Amino acid sequence: MAGWVRYISIAPPNLQNNTADADRLIGELKTQLNTDAIDIDLYLLKRLPDLLRRCKYNVNCILFKDRERWLVTGVAHPQDINPIYGLAVDLGTTRIVLRLIDLSTGRITAETSSDNPQIPVGPDILARIHFADQDGGLNRLNRMIIDGLNQMIIRLCDSCKAEPYNIYSLSVAGNTAMTHFFMSLNPRWMIREPYIPVINRPGLIKAEELGIRVNPAARVLIFPSVGSYFGGDLIAGILFSGLNKAEDTAILVDVGTNAEVVIGNRDWLVACAGAAGPALECGATKIGMMAGPGVIDQVVIDHDTYNIRWHTIDNMPPKGICGSGLIDLASHLFLCGMIDIKGKLVPSVCGSRLNEKDGIRHLVGVPAEDSATGSALTISQADIDSLIRSKAAMYAILETITSSVGISFKDLSTFYVAGTFGSFINPRSAISIGMLPDLPIDRYKSLGNSSIGGTTMALTSSKCLDEIDGIRGRVTYLELNVNQEFMNRFSAAMFLPHTDPLLFRSVKVRTSRNPQ
Amino acid sequence: MAGWVRYISIAPPNLQNNTADADRLIGELKTQLNTDAIDIDLYLLKRLPDLLRRCKYNVNCILFKDRERWLVTGVAHPQDINPIYGLAVDLGTTRIVLRLIDLSTGRITAETSSDNPQIPVGPDILARIHFADQDGGLNRLNRMIIDGLNQMIIRLCDSCKAEPYNIYSLSVAGNTAMTHFFMSLNPRWMIREPYIPVINRPGLIKAEELGIRVNPAARVLIFPSVGSYFGGDLIAGILFSGLNKAEDTAILVDVGTNAEVVIGNRDWLVACAGAAGPALECGATKIGMMAGPGVIDQVVIDHDTYNIRWHTIDNMPPKGICGSGLIDLASHLFLCGMIDIKGKLVPSVCGSRLNEKDGIRHLVGVPAEDSATGSALTISQADIDSLIRSKAAMYAILETITSSVGISFKDLSTFYVAGTFGSFINPRSAISIGMLPDLPIDRYKSLGNSSIGGTTMALTSSKCLDEIDGIRGRVTYLELNVNQEFMNRFSAAMFLPHTDPLLFRSVKVRTSRNPQ
Repeated sequence: MAGWVRYISIAPPNLQNNTADADRLIGELKTQLNTDAIDIDLYLLKRLPDLLRRCKYNVNCILFKDRERWLVTGVAHPQDINPIYGLAVDLGTTRIVLRLIDLSTGRITAETSSDNPQIPVGPDILARIHFADQDGGLNRLNRMIIDGLNQMIIRLCDSCKAEPYNIYSLSVAGNTAMTHFFMSLNPRWMIREPYIPVINRPGLIKAEELGIRVNPAARVLIFPSVGSYFGGDLIAGILFSGLNKAEDTAILVDVGTNAEVVIGNRDWLVACAGAAGPALECGATKIGMMAGPGVIDQVVIDHDTYNIRWHTIDNMPPKGICGSGLIDLASHLFLCGMIDIKGKLVPSVCGSRLNEKDGIRHLVGVPAEDSATGSALTISQADIDSLIRSKAAMYAILETITSSVGISFKDLSTFYVAGTFGSFINPRSAISIGMLPDLPIDRYKSLGNSSIGGTTMALTSSKCLDEIDGIRGRVTYLELNVNQEFMNRFSAAMFLPHTDPLLFRSVKVRTSRNPQ
Repeated sequence: MAGWVRYISIAPPNLQNNTADADRLIGELKTQLNTDAIDIDLYLLKRLPDLLRRCKYNVNCILFKDRERWLVTGVAHPQDINPIYGLAVDLGTTRIVLRLIDLSTGRITAETSSDNPQIPVGPDILARIHFADQDGGLNRLNRMIIDGLNQMIIRLCDSCKAEPYNIYSLSVAGNTAMTHFFMSLNPRWMIREPYIPVINRPGLIKAEELGIRVNPAARVLIFPSVGSYFGGDLIAGILFSGLNKAEDTAILVDVGTNAEVVIGNRDWLVACAGAAGPALECGATKIGMMAGPGVIDQVVIDHDTYNIRWHTIDNMPPKGICGSGLIDLASHLFLCGMIDIKGKLVPSVCGSRLNEKDGIRHLVGVPAEDSATGSALTISQADIDSLIRSKAAMYAILETITSSVGISFKDLSTFYVAGTFGSFINPRSAISIGMLPDLPIDRYKSLGNSSIGGTTMALTSSKCLDEIDGIRGRVTYLELNVNQEFMNRFSAAMFLPHTDPLLFRSVKVRTSRNPQ
C-alpha cells in the first residue's frame, strides 16, 4: 500500500550493528521505500531513542514527502489506540472546509466548515489583496486565517475526541491569493500587470512555521498553483476528478465568481479562468444568498398554472435563493415563456406576479405569507440580466477553450461540474438557459467540493502526491484575452439559450398561450 | 566558481513570462547549478518580491546545500556594502572556536574562541553525558552551549562591525556528544553497550530551530559522525587534511584525551579512536595546564650542564606546563639520562634537582625564584609514569591501525598531527619518547585546529560539502577492542622509546657519565 503510515521493524542494535538510532530507522525505510532521500524532523529526533526502545524497534512511521525527499514526522507504537491523523483543508475565499483523515486507513473521521474569517475585510478576494497592501494588512489577514484554522482544528478534534497533537500532516488547497495569505506572502503583484505571484510551488512547510498548532513535527503540503488566476484548489480538483489519468478527453468546470475550466486527458491539460460575474454565486441578486437552511435551492414552475414551487434547504420557510435555485428559476421562467429569449419578463405571461419598483420590473417568487422574512421574495429584471451576463460569459469561456484545442463539446466524455455551489446545479436547467452545452445529461457529473476531495486524496497515498506535481507541470494555461472573438461569442450567448438554437436542440420552449 | 554566493540575473516579468517571482529565480538557479532540486526559505520568500524589484532582478543569491537539495537562504543587492557571512564553529569539549567567513570571497573576517561553557558541569564529556540524563540536565547543557554561542556571535560581530543578521550559513563540527548537546539530543545510549548515538547524519537544520540568533533563514550544517567515538570534528579534520583526495596513503592523528586516528587515501579510509589518558592534555599532572600566557610550551635540557631551559607563552614567568612542553621535557630527561628506559628518575644523574614528597620523587623543573607561583614547579615520578602510559597507548593504537590495514609506518607519505594541543608537539621529542613513529621529520605536518579548518572549508565551496558525505561514507571504523595483541603492543611501548630499539634508530641516548 502507498499510504503515509508504514510499519517498520528493525533489528535491535548490537556491537556489530551499532549505527545511530535515526540512521538505522532511515536505512530500513530507504529499503522499503526504495529511495535515497529520507529526512527526520528534529522534534521527533529528540524523542526517537525512547520511542524506539519502548516499541522494541517495531514502529509505525508517519511519513510525508516533499517532491523526491521523504520526511519522517512521527513514530508511533503499533498498538497505540490513538489514531494518526492528517488534516485536509480547503481554503475557500468564502468557506473554509476541514477534514480529519485517519492516515492509517485513509478514512474521513470528521469534517467541519466555517465562513472564511477574512470575509469582514472583504467578501471578494480583490478587496483583501488591496487590504493586504496597507500597513499591517497582510499580517492581519494572515492572523485571521491562521487563528481561525487553529480554532476550527480544536473544534474538529473535540467533536471526535482527537488531539491536535496527533495531526502529523496537512494538505491545503486554495486559490493563489488565499494560499498567499495563508503563508503571509503579499499578493500585491498578482493584481498588477504582468500579474506575478510570489511563488507557485511552495512545497512542504513546517506547520509550526506557519503558526498551525498541531504536532510540532507536522508538515503542510500546499497545493501548487499554475499562476495568479489558477490556484492550488483547481490542481486539487483535477486530481480529484481523475481528468489527468483518463484516456478520453473530459472537461472540469469550477463554477463561481470566476469560471475556472480545465480540459484534457492523460496526455495534456489546458486550463483557463475568466470572470463569470457574481450572479452565479448570488452575489448580485437582492434575494440571492449562500446555501443554508431556508434557502431555496430548487425551483419548478408548473407550465400550465405558472405556479412556482420551491424546495428549501432543511425544508425551512424560504428566506432567499442560492445559485442553483436561481438557475432553476430562470430556466423555468424561460421554458414556460415568462421571460423571452432576451431574458426580459413578459408581462402578458407573468400577469399579476409582476410588479414594478423604482421603474424596474419584479417577479414575485414567494408571496409574503409564505416567506420567512415576512416580505415577498422577488426577482428583478436586473437580477435576471445579471444572471444572463454570467451564463453568457461561462458559455463563451467554454466555447473558447474547446475551440482552442480543436475539440467540440460532443467529443467530451465527461463534463465535471465542481464548486461548493456548482455541484448543486441541475444540468438540465443550466442547459435550458444556455449556460452549459447541450450534452446528454449523463455526461454531467457533479464533483461536490473537488478541492477538499483533492486535498483528502493527498493524505491517503504518496502516489497522489507525485501526481500533483505531474498535473501542475502539464497544465498549459490559456490567457483568456478578452478579444473580439470572445466578445462575439459572449454576445451570441446573451440570448436564451443562444442566438443559434441548433446548439441547444434539446431545449423546448413552450409555445406562447393565454396567460393564467 | 563553486562558492555559496551566486550572481543571478533574470529577465523582468512580462505577460509572456509571468510565472511567480520565486519560481523564476529558482528556474534560473536550476540552469546555473544544473540541478532539479532547489528550495527557498519561507522567511526569505516573504521579502523576495520587494528584493527582486529593488535589485532590478539582478541579485546575489546566498545558497546552501543539504545533500542533493540546494536551498536559497538569502538574496542581496550586488552592490550591497554589507558582506554576506558564514560562521564556522568548532564545538570542542574544552574550547569553542568561531570564525566569521566572508561567503563571497571565502576569506576569514574574524575569529574568536572561548572555553566551552559546559565545563562547570564537568571538564570531561562523560560527566556531561551523565548530567544530561538527570532531570532537566540535557536542557541545561543545551542552553549553556546555545546561549554561549549566541554571546560569542555578538562579540565576534561587534569586533568587526558585522551584524549577526548577515550570517546566512553555519557549519558546525564537534565530537558526537557535543553535537548531541548542540541539538538537544540525549546521548545516554552512547555510553551504554552497544553505544548508540541518536543520529549520525543530521544534515541541514534551521538555525532558528536550534536557537541560534543569526539571519532567520540561516541553516546550520552539522558535520556527520561515524559513531559514538568518531565525531564530526574528525570528519572535518579529514576534509581539512585532504587525506581523502591523495593518491599516497597518509595518516591523521588528533591528539587529545582520546587519540583519534585515520589512515587512508583517495580510495579508502580506516579510522579508530582509543583512550590515550589525560596526560597528553596535562589533565593528570599537578603542574600541567592548558596552553595560555605563562605556560611552558617548549623545553630544552643542556646535555652537558643538565640545565633546564624553558619557553613560555607570551614570555611570562612560568606557572605550569602544557602537553607539548611536557613531551619536550620527558624527551630531554630521557636523552640525557635523567630518566631511564622505564621512565624512572635517575638520582645519580638528576642530583640536587631531585627531592622527595610523600615518598614520591620530584624533579624541580623551575626553581621557586623563577616561577610565577612563588613555589618551585616540579614534575613527579607519577606524572612521568602517567605520560608514559599515554604515549604507550598512542603508539599501540598507531601500530594496531597500520597493521590492520597492512601498512608499515615508513609507507606513510605524510603524518598529520592535529588538535589544539597536538599541533604544538615537537615531533622530534614525540619520537624520542616513542610516542610517534621514527619517521623523517619532514613527513610530520602540523594541522593546527583541523576541525575549524574543515568547517571553514565547508563555507567556501559547495564541492567541499559533497566531499563531507563522501568521506563519511568511506570511513571504516575499526573497533579498538582492548585484546591481548593490543595489550602486548601497549606493554612493549611502555619503555623509552620502546622495547625494540630498532624501531627508533634515530633516537640516540647520551651515554651515562658523572653527575654534575
